[in-house]
Amino acid sequence: MEQKIYLQNQAWEEALALMMRELGPRCQPENEPIKVSCALGRITGETVRAQRSSPHYPAAAMDGYAVRARETFGLNERQPRWFQLGSEALSVDTGDPMPKGMDAVVMLEEVLNKTEEAVLLQQAVVPWSNVRAVGEDIVEGEILLPIHHRLRPQDLGALLAGGVTELAVRRKPRVGILPTGDEIRAPGQPLNVGEIVDSNSTVLSALIAEWGGEAKVWPIVADDWDQLENAVLAMEASQDILVIIAGSSQGRDDYTVPLIEKFGRIYAHGMAIKPGKPAMLGEIKGKPVIGIPGYPVSAFLTARLFLRAWIKHELGLPSGTLPVMRAFLNKKVFSGLGSEEFVRVKVGRVGERWVAAPISRGAGVTMSLVRADGILRVPRLQEGFHEGAPVQVELLRPQEELEETLICIGSHDLTLDLMDSYLKMNGRHGALASAHVGSLAGLMALRKGEAHLAGVHLLDPESGEYNRPYLERLLPQRRIALVNLVYRTQGLLVARGNPLKLRTLADLADGRLRFVNRQGGSGTRVLLDYLLAQEGVDKQQILGYDREEFTHLGVAVAIASGSADAGLGIQSAALSLGLDFIPIGEERYDLAIPQEYLADRRIEMLLEVIASPDFQAEVRAMGGYDLRDAGKFMNGPGETQAE
Amino acid sequence: MEQKIYLQNQAWEEALALMMRELGPRCQPENEPIKVSCALGRITGETVRAQRSSPHYPAAAMDGYAVRARETFGLNERQPRWFQLGSEALSVDTGDPMPKGMDAVVMLEEVLNKTEEAVLLQQAVVPWSNVRAVGEDIVEGEILLPIHHRLRPQDLGALLAGGVTELAVRRKPRVGILPTGDEIRAPGQPLNVGEIVDSNSTVLSALIAEWGGEAKVWPIVADDWDQLENAVLAMEASQDILVIIAGSSQGRDDYTVPLIEKFGRIYAHGMAIKPGKPAMLGEIKGKPVIGIPGYPVSAFLTARLFLRAWIKHELGLPSGTLPVMRAFLNKKVFSGLGSEEFVRVKVGRVGERWVAAPISRGAGVTMSLVRADGILRVPRLQEGFHEGAPVQVELLRPQEELEETLICIGSHDLTLDLMDSYLKMNGRHGALASAHVGSLAGLMALRKGEAHLAGVHLLDPESGEYNRPYLERLLPQRRIALVNLVYRTQGLLVARGNPLKLRTLADLADGRLRFVNRQGGSGTRVLLDYLLAQEGVDKQQILGYDREEFTHLGVAVAIASGSADAGLGIQSAALSLGLDFIPIGEERYDLAIPQEYLADRRIEMLLEVIASPDFQAEVRAMGGYDLRDAGKFMNGPGETQAE
Repeated sequence: MEQKIYLQNQAWEEALALMMRELGPRCQPENEPIKVSCALGRITGETVRAQRSSPHYPAAAMDGYAVRARETFGLNERQPRWFQLGSEALSVDTGDPMPKGMDAVVMLEEVLNKTEEAVLLQQAVVPWSNVRAVGEDIVEGEILLPIHHRLRPQDLGALLAGGVTELAVRRKPRVGILPTGDEIRAPGQPLNVGEIVDSNSTVLSALIAEWGGEAKVWPIVADDWDQLENAVLAMEASQDILVIIAGSSQGRDDYTVPLIEKFGRIYAHGMAIKPGKPAMLGEIKGKPVIGIPGYPVSAFLTARLFLRAWIKHELGLPSGTLPVMRAFLNKKVFSGLGSEEFVRVKVGRVGERWVAAPISRGAGVTMSLVRADGILRVPRLQEGFHEGAPVQVELLRPQEELEETLICIGSHDLTLDLMDSYLKMNGRHGALASAHVGSLAGLMALRKGEAHLAGVHLLDPESGEYNRPYLERLLPQRRIALVNLVYRTQGLLVARGNPLKLRTLADLADGRLRFVNRQGGSGTRVLLDYLLAQEGVDKQQILGYDREEFTHLGVAVAIASGSADAGLGIQSAALSLGLDFIPIGEERYDLAIPQEYLADRRIEMLLEVIASPDFQAEVRAMGGYDLRDAGKFMNGPGETQAE
Repeated sequence: MEQKIYLQNQAWEEALALMMRELGPRCQPENEPIKVSCALGRITGETVRAQRSSPHYPAAAMDGYAVRARETFGLNERQPRWFQLGSEALSVDTGDPMPKGMDAVVMLEEVLNKTEEAVLLQQAVVPWSNVRAVGEDIVEGEILLPIHHRLRPQDLGALLAGGVTELAVRRKPRVGILPTGDEIRAPGQPLNVGEIVDSNSTVLSALIAEWGGEAKVWPIVADDWDQLENAVLAMEASQDILVIIAGSSQGRDDYTVPLIEKFGRIYAHGMAIKPGKPAMLGEIKGKPVIGIPGYPVSAFLTARLFLRAWIKHELGLPSGTLPVMRAFLNKKVFSGLGSEEFVRVKVGRVGERWVAAPISRGAGVTMSLVRADGILRVPRLQEGFHEGAPVQVELLRPQEELEETLICIGSHDLTLDLMDSYLKMNGRHGALASAHVGSLAGLMALRKGEAHLAGVHLLDPESGEYNRPYLERLLPQRRIALVNLVYRTQGLLVARGNPLKLRTLADLADGRLRFVNRQGGSGTRVLLDYLLAQEGVDKQQILGYDREEFTHLGVAVAIASGSADAGLGIQSAALSLGLDFIPIGEERYDLAIPQEYLADRRIEMLLEVIASPDFQAEVRAMGGYDLRDAGKFMNGPGETQAE
């Protein structure tokens, strides 16, 4: 197999530095002229100087009367004097040129009286008061803007005021994007089994636009040497930077690397990064070629490392730094030595602390990039970070938005995703970020101050009561409110048509049926164990009892894809995936909210949403939910937890 | 005059709230369909759900061989087994559908040996290892994005992966902009005396684009009722929001307010804000009309208050908050009671502290918006802030950029503006923000830790030595390096042709010539006093000795515009404004840099620029500069100041 495992394991900074050193000097920025009115967001390609002073004539700075200052000397409230209009005083509006001979303006508000012929003035004014001198704002020849400056709205105003209507900006680097692969289909085309939609070209185009380049997407080419060669050479002829998506891994149909070697040079293939290892850097005829892996997360991250740097370089800008913030890790992050790992994290402010919570690490999980608030880098020669470590997070979302976000850690429920949307409606601007770790872990997160609220549905086997006994046991010192969100029907999820004819929990222990469980500490797991004990079923007899998923949808997916026959979960998850559902019972799902957050306006918004008829209607429509106590404080009216 | 002074003095929040209450419900957001590939930056107008699971078939997660997991049970390094290709093991690439019957993938790297017909495996794999289940990333029906979400590149990827190729986004509110005024000219047209370029329409269009709206600029209309009425009604017919620039002040030609009253309603005219008082809020036929004052700074600030809120409202979004940061004021800010004032500030990090320094407060100074890093609001019922007060600054520049900025407070020199540009060239990404307060105030700023460096040219009258005696006197406890920037020629600036035939400083005291001075504490003022004393000239005899400007260009502008006959300043200032120059002598201009900043990479960049031949050549070309010691440490080789 050796011939196929040829990926290097190179430090990405070194690979990029080598390429920049060798190829960078041959790829210099170019300027183009642009009208000021079209220049928003562009990068200045020169130091821009004013071509005209502003004001370009001495001008009245106020509405009023232009006078000769020396003629006002000696005036005061007890000695006013009439000034003849036309000779001694002339009406001027703000911006009007100063009439010849006049050197000051008396403001309208300071005029004591007025007739057709004259104004009564009562104040002495010094020469040049309320007059804008030539060049007061801008002097001809003055530097208006430095080079390499991103043009903001106010900069355009200063340019026009300084008589500049056209300027030189950096030409946007042209980036050609070539999606490759027999199995890749353009967005909108029907997909057969084995076919994958090309989402990467769209994501990369958007990133390129944000970084100041101009993307052009080539039609998808199959794994065919001639087609690939034609496309790459066509890109080379018209583009400044070449991006080839996929075709740089070690699969059976990879022509990219030999093709680049035929026409140019490979700088590095295989980086010590995770995800993104198959990334490639090369050149063809003096133009940079960047090989981007096909997995969406890998594509996104490697584009940020390599493509961004090249676009910046061709704009004449340093790569600079990405906005970062400091946060504290809510759990240990382990990462193997030898690769720099890019861990996606959720970030939220709980009390005074910013908390970072790692989320899915799969390279194929596009939603992880949507959900992530930032990226935490684990250096190549570091095994990770311990729980509570202060870390630097590169932000994927503006910090103002994060300030508005409620952190919900605990059990998963589909209504939480809906809640996020409702927190953004009707003039609200909240957000709910939920991490699905199970009810018990949610309460632990409250204890450690890492969440504003926790979704919990924990049945106490002794009392048969939900949630409150757990609060008393786990958070005895804290005042925690339990606000009901829903009652929901739990039951067995099975394939459509219930082919194995399951009816009760006892059927799970037949020794052949493949069960899929929820993780320990989840409310569903607690419920399962409680029900199994009640019915006297031995869990050791259940095949797959040890196979754990972290969400209801995870369980549903396992069943829908045929890797398991049954699991315990909520009805809405069954409905989402078109599974059959055998109801077992109803359970109470509450939000546990520490007393000190109840007055937080974000929590107030959340309670407002729970109480709103439109939210409740949409939850009911999902199926399997009862909202009879939605929004009700479950540990007693007006109070929280008994201490 | 009462009939013209009709501006109210209303709290802007109340005026806006009234308008929102009355008119807001009639101006609801609208959606439009858009293709995902065009949706970057748009705002979702619906909760977006997946139309397809991803993966939509069980897929290999690695390159390798698909097998039946149970057939690998029992394998280990000492008990490998050959698997027949085609029946027991099938080659798969990442993303390939799992062959029928196979339920796990053995990674390529774990294959021990291979022939044409078989692979030698040595590891047991559990079912579904290295297999991506249907819906592992996205489950059909799952919420991909909430409503009111600004679409980022990664969001587009998730939409496509979830089978969404088109979605509903908020239609961009259409904003009509009407520039008005007899004296207003479109950019690019020649300007006569009394004519002003319309820079506001371009600035507002750019702001509108940044806020998510779509601007359309109408041709400039003169102060003519019929033209104005036609334009306003045409705007009303096709736009969602109407902006009228100027015409809302109290000058003689203001028709806007009566026009709006004719067709609609005025909510407020005249706000308790500074600048921006003449702003107006009204409606015509159910559409919001915003009257924006003509002064560029007023236009910018009132658009941010009122227009931004309306665009957000019509997108369905709350106005939200602008990014702010905390900084400490470097000097007292006084602001009159009764108006909320928007003070432009420079912001920089010196050591661990963020320092905010107020800059020009004139409403006509467009460059103040270019130079400002942020805006400090002084509330209506507050008289200002004391020196050192912690304040919240709304940022006009990304914080990352501010991190790179060196703060130079002290004497003004034109080469400092050029330095800012050079700090951005050749892969550098620095910036120099300079505040011009004079040499002595610059040293005070170093003492208070508010600047990284100070530009100083202070002649000690006793020793005749520059700068060092002042450091010893004012900062005896500190180690401060003096790095020479330039020697520059000081002299008398006079009108072109030197009409008053000035030759020496003594000529200033003729009792008729109008002098313009620099402020106390500036090096130039110290130099003037020194030279006057040397020549035995009585400064009381100099008409205008008490008139102070804060920069060389300020002095030059006063002379060029005829408000003064002479001033002391540097040659490059005379050259900029085409003035005549009578050399008086050469002076040394140094940068005073505290020892602790010398190792700061930003200071290192600055020293690199001073030493660079291209920078020096451009400075020489400005005229009046000598660079024989540029970059030299003036208080002794290798050391800073003697203690």
